[in-house]
Amino acid sequence: MRPAPAPGPLPASMQLTSDGRLRHFLTLEGLSAPLLTEILDLAESFTTVTAQPVKKVPLLRGKTIFNLFFEPSTRTRTSFELAAKRLSADVMNMNISTSSTTKGESLLDTLRNLEAMHSDMFIVRHSQSGAAQLIARHVAPHISVLNAGDGQHSHPTQAMLDMFTIRREKGPLNTLRVAIVGDILHSRVARSQIHALNILNTPEIRVIAPKTLLPKNVEELGVQVHHSLDRGLRDVDVVIMLRLQKERMRGALLPSENEYYRLFGLTRERLALARPDALVMHPGPANRGVEIASDVADGPQSVILKQVSYGVAVRMALMSMCMGNPPGSHE
Amino acid sequence: MRPAPAPGPLPASMQLTSDGRLRHFLTLEGLSAPLLTEILDLAESFTTVTAQPVKKVPLLRGKTIFNLFFEPSTRTRTSFELAAKRLSADVMNMNISTSSTTKGESLLDTLRNLEAMHSDMFIVRHSQSGAAQLIARHVAPHISVLNAGDGQHSHPTQAMLDMFTIRREKGPLNTLRVAIVGDILHSRVARSQIHALNILNTPEIRVIAPKTLLPKNVEELGVQVHHSLDRGLRDVDVVIMLRLQKERMRGALLPSENEYYRLFGLTRERLALARPDALVMHPGPANRGVEIASDVADGPQSVILKQVSYGVAVRMALMSMCMGNPPGSHE
Amino acid sequence: MRPAPAPGPLPASMQLTSDGRLRHFLTLEGLSAPLLTEILDLAESFTTVTAQPVKKVPLLRGKTIFNLFFEPSTRTRTSFELAAKRLSADVMNMNISTSSTTKGESLLDTLRNLEAMHSDMFIVRHSQSGAAQLIARHVAPHISVLNAGDGQHSHPTQAMLDMFTIRREKGPLNTLRVAIVGDILHSRVARSQIHALNILNTPEIRVIAPKTLLPKNVEELGVQVHHSLDRGLRDVDVVIMLRLQKERMRGALLPSENEYYRLFGLTRERLALARPDALVMHPGPANRGVEIASDVADGPQSVILKQVSYGVAVRMALMSMCMGNPPGSHE
Repeated sequence: MRPAPAPGPLPASMQLTSDGRLRHFLTLEGLSAPLLTEILDLAESFTTVTAQPVKKVPLLRGKTIFNLFFEPSTRTRTSFELAAKRLSADVMNMNISTSSTTKGESLLDTLRNLEAMHSDMFIVRHSQSGAAQLIARHVAPHISVLNAGDGQHSHPTQAMLDMFTIRREKGPLNTLRVAIVGDILHSRVARSQIHALNILNTPEIRVIAPKTLLPKNVEELGVQVHHSLDRGLRDVDVVIMLRLQKERMRGALLPSENEYYRLFGLTRERLALARPDALVMHPGPANRGVEIASDVADGPQSVILKQVSYGVAVRMALMSMCMGNPPGSHE
Repeated sequence: MRPAPAPGPLPASMQLTSDGRLRHFLTLEGLSAPLLTEILDLAESFTTVTAQPVKKVPLLRGKTIFNLFFEPSTRTRTSFELAAKRLSADVMNMNISTSSTTKGESLLDTLRNLEAMHSDMFIVRHSQSGAAQLIARHVAPHISVLNAGDGQHSHPTQAMLDMFTIRREKGPLNTLRVAIVGDILHSRVARSQIHALNILNTPEIRVIAPKTLLPKNVEELGVQVHHSLDRGLRDVDVVIMLRLQKERMRGALLPSENEYYRLFGLTRERLALARPDALVMHPGPANRGVEIASDVADGPQSVILKQVSYGVAVRMALMSMCMGNPPGSHE
Repeated sequence: MRPAPAPGPLPASMQLTSDGRLRHFLTLEGLSAPLLTEILDLAESFTTVTAQPVKKVPLLRGKTIFNLFFEPSTRTRTSFELAAKRLSADVMNMNISTSSTTKGESLLDTLRNLEAMHSDMFIVRHSQSGAAQLIARHVAPHISVLNAGDGQHSHPTQAMLDMFTIRREKGPLNTLRVAIVGDILHSRVARSQIHALNILNTPEIRVIAPKTLLPKNVEELGVQVHHSLDRGLRDVDVVIMLRLQKERMRGALLPSENEYYRLFGLTRERLALARPDALVMHPGPANRGVEIASDVADGPQSVILKQVSYGVAVRMALMSMCMGNPPGSHE
C-alpha cells in the first residue's frame, strides 16, 4: 500500500459514528466546536488521573492498541504509550521498518494481520500525507485509527493539546489573539492548529513567516499574514513557535540559521511586544538559538513543558472517546 | 551454545510431564491425537475471550514469559506477545542480536541468567534446526519452552493453528483431503502440518511440488506426492499454499518466479479443480503473484486472516496448558 | 547535557529525604549501615514474592518508570524491568540512541519532557561517570533516579545484590574475609563493592590485581592489596571475580589473555587456597578461560546465578523504598 501523495478530501462523516460520536481521529477538518469542547472537557478530567499517586484507570482494560510508527519519534510515541497504559490497555509497539514488510509484505497486508489479531486501535505516524486516512478507510468497523502525524498534512492530537493548554492557561479561545510563527508551509502542526483555532472561534489568528515558508493562498484558511515578527507579535495572547527543520536551511528557502534567528527568532525583547502575560508555546523539540532563545523557552511565560504534560491527558481523552467510553465514565 | 545442525531424535516423553500433561511444545512428533484434540478444544474456548470487549483472563498473572527471537518475525512474535498479554502474563521481548551475547557471553549463559530471574516460559525462534529442543534439554524443571520455529525443522504452533482453522471451518480432520503446495523441502511449516494431519488421522494428505523442492523419501511421511498442481488439487477439501522463499529462485532449484507461478501458483481457475467449498490457507506472508493469485488470497474461500485470528487463541491454549492450567480453568 | 567526566563529590544528603529515607540511589558513598541493612532486609522479603506462583505485588501500581539505557545491557536492563513489572509499575524502555536526541534535542530536554509526562523514576545507565548523579541534580522533586551503572564510577545496585548474596549464603558481613580479583582500576562494580563492604564493617577486604589494573592509592579505600592471587586467596570466605574487558588486553596494560589467566584466572587448584566453603561470585557475564575456569564458574561453590536471582529482589526493594513504601508494606 502506497499512501497517495495528495490525500483526497475526507468526508466529515468518516471520523464520526452515525450518532455523531468520535470513531477515528485523523484531522480536525469537519469537526464541530461542541465535539472539540467535549474532548477538552474530558481531557480536563484526565488531568486528575495523571496527578494521582496511582495514575491508572481501567477504562481500556483488555483493549489492544498498536503503536504504528513509520517515522521515528520519542515524545509522541511515548505520550501515546503512556496514555494507553494509564487507561490499562495492552500496547504493542511496532517498529515497522524492521518488521516483515522487509519480507515483501505490503503495509496493507501487515495491517490486515494486526486487525485479525483483534486489535482495537492503531496509532499511526507516517511520513506521507494521508497515510492514517488511507488506513482508516480500510480497517474493520470495530477499529479506530488515531493520526499521530502524517507527512505535512495533519497532527491533530498535537493541535488538541495546544488548544487544551491555551484554554487552561488563558481561558476560552473565542476571546484571544494567537500567533503562529515559523515554517507554516511544511508544518502539519500549524495546519492542524489553524483548523482547531478556527473551529473554536478564535477571533484573530496570525501566521508570521517569511514568504518562502508560507503556503499559497494561506489567507483562505482564515488567518492574518505577517512577514515581520515585530509587527505580528503586537498584543497577542499566545505565541506558538514552530520547529525549524534544519534541512530547510540548506535549500533555497532560507539564508542561514543566524539570519533566521535574527528575523524570526523569539527573544525576550521581541516577546515584550506581545501582551505581558502572553503564553509561549512550542510543539518541541525546540531548536534553541534558531527559532527561540533559550531564556524564553525556559522563561516564566513558557508553557512548553505543560504542553507535554497535558498531551498525555488529551490523548487519554481521545483514545477513550474513540473506544466508545462516554465522557465521565471513568469517575 | 551452538545448536547442532541435525537435532537428534526427541524422546516423546520429553515434552510431557510424568502424568502425560504438556510441559514443552517443541514438535508434533510423538504427541497423541487426544492431546492435540485437547489443545484444539481449549483454543476453542479462548476464541470467546478474544471476542470479548475485555480480551483478558488472569490465568498467567504474575508469570514471566520471555520472547526469545533470534530470527526476525513480526506476526509470530506479535501473536505470542498478544497471547501472553491476554493471559495477563508479564512478557519480555529479547532482541538477542543486540544483547550481551555481543559481549562474548554464550547463549546458554544468557538463558541461565534469564532462568535465574524466575522466568516461567521461553518462546524460542531460531534459524537453526533443533535450537528450541536444545534449550528445552537444559532449562530448569519449572520452565516451559515453546518452539516458535526452528530452522527447517518444525513450527508446531503454526501447524496447530492450521488444524484449528480446518476443524473449525470444515469439521473433523478424519474425513478430509488436504493438499500442501510448494516448497516442502525447506518448510518447517509443512513438516509440522504433515505430522499434525497424520496424528489427527487425516485420510489423504497430498504434497504438491516440483521434484527439486521435495525432501527425499517424502512418501515415508505418509503423504501422496504430486508434481502437477492440476492433478493434485482435484477434489481436495483444503489447499495449504506455502510461502516461496525468494532466495530459492536465485539458485538452481527453480527457473524463475514467473515460471513457478505458471506451474504452481494458485489461481482461480486452478482452485476450481478442488471441491467447490475448499479452504485456501497460507501461513503468511503471502507472495502475491508468486505462489498465489491476489484474488484467491482475498477471495471467498480464503481463510488466511482467520488463521491469524485463531493463532492467538491457539497460542493462549498452548501457553496455558504448559503452565499447568487445566482445560476450562479460565471459564 | 554533557555529563562532566569527573563528577564532583556528592553531598551525602542528596540521596536521602529530610527524614533520612532513600530518595535516589546513585552511589553507596555516604550511606549508613542501618540503611544498607534495611535494604537487605526488605530484599529478603521480596525473595518470597519472586518464589510465588504469582510473582507480583501491587506496590508500585500506577507508577511510571523509565529505563534510560544509554549503554547497551541485557541482564541489568532485564533485571530492572522485571523488578518494576513485579511491583506492578508501568515500565517504559527508552532506546536513547534512536530517540529524538538525533533531532538535536539535548539530553536534558529529553528528560524534562519525560518528567513532564508524570514519570516517577528514571533508571539510568550511562558510559560517563557521574551521569545519573547529574540527572538526579536536575529532576523534579517527586522523581527518583536509580543508577544502573555510570562509567567507571559506580554500580550500586550490583554491589547491593552482592552484599545480599554474601549475607544470605555466609551470614553477616562483619565476620568475613572478602577478596575482589581483577581489573579494579576500570571497574565500577569493584568501587561500589568496596564501599558497601566497608559500610557493613567487613573486617578484611582484599583486592588482588596486577599493578597496572589498580587505582593509585587504592589502600586509602580501606583494602589490603595483593599482587599474587595465590597469596591473596588464602583463607578468604568470599572470592569476587571481575570481568576482564577484552579491550584492556590490547593496550599496554596486560600481556595477553593466556598470561592473565595463568596469573589471575580462578582455577579449582587456586580456589582450594581459600576457605573450603568459600563463595565464588562474578557480576557476569563471565569470560570463561580468561578470569575464571568454566568448572569453577559452574562449580558447587559458585553463586553466580544466585546473584542474578537475588538481583531482582534487591532492585524491587530499592525501587520500592525510593518510591516511599515503608519496609514490610507489601506483606
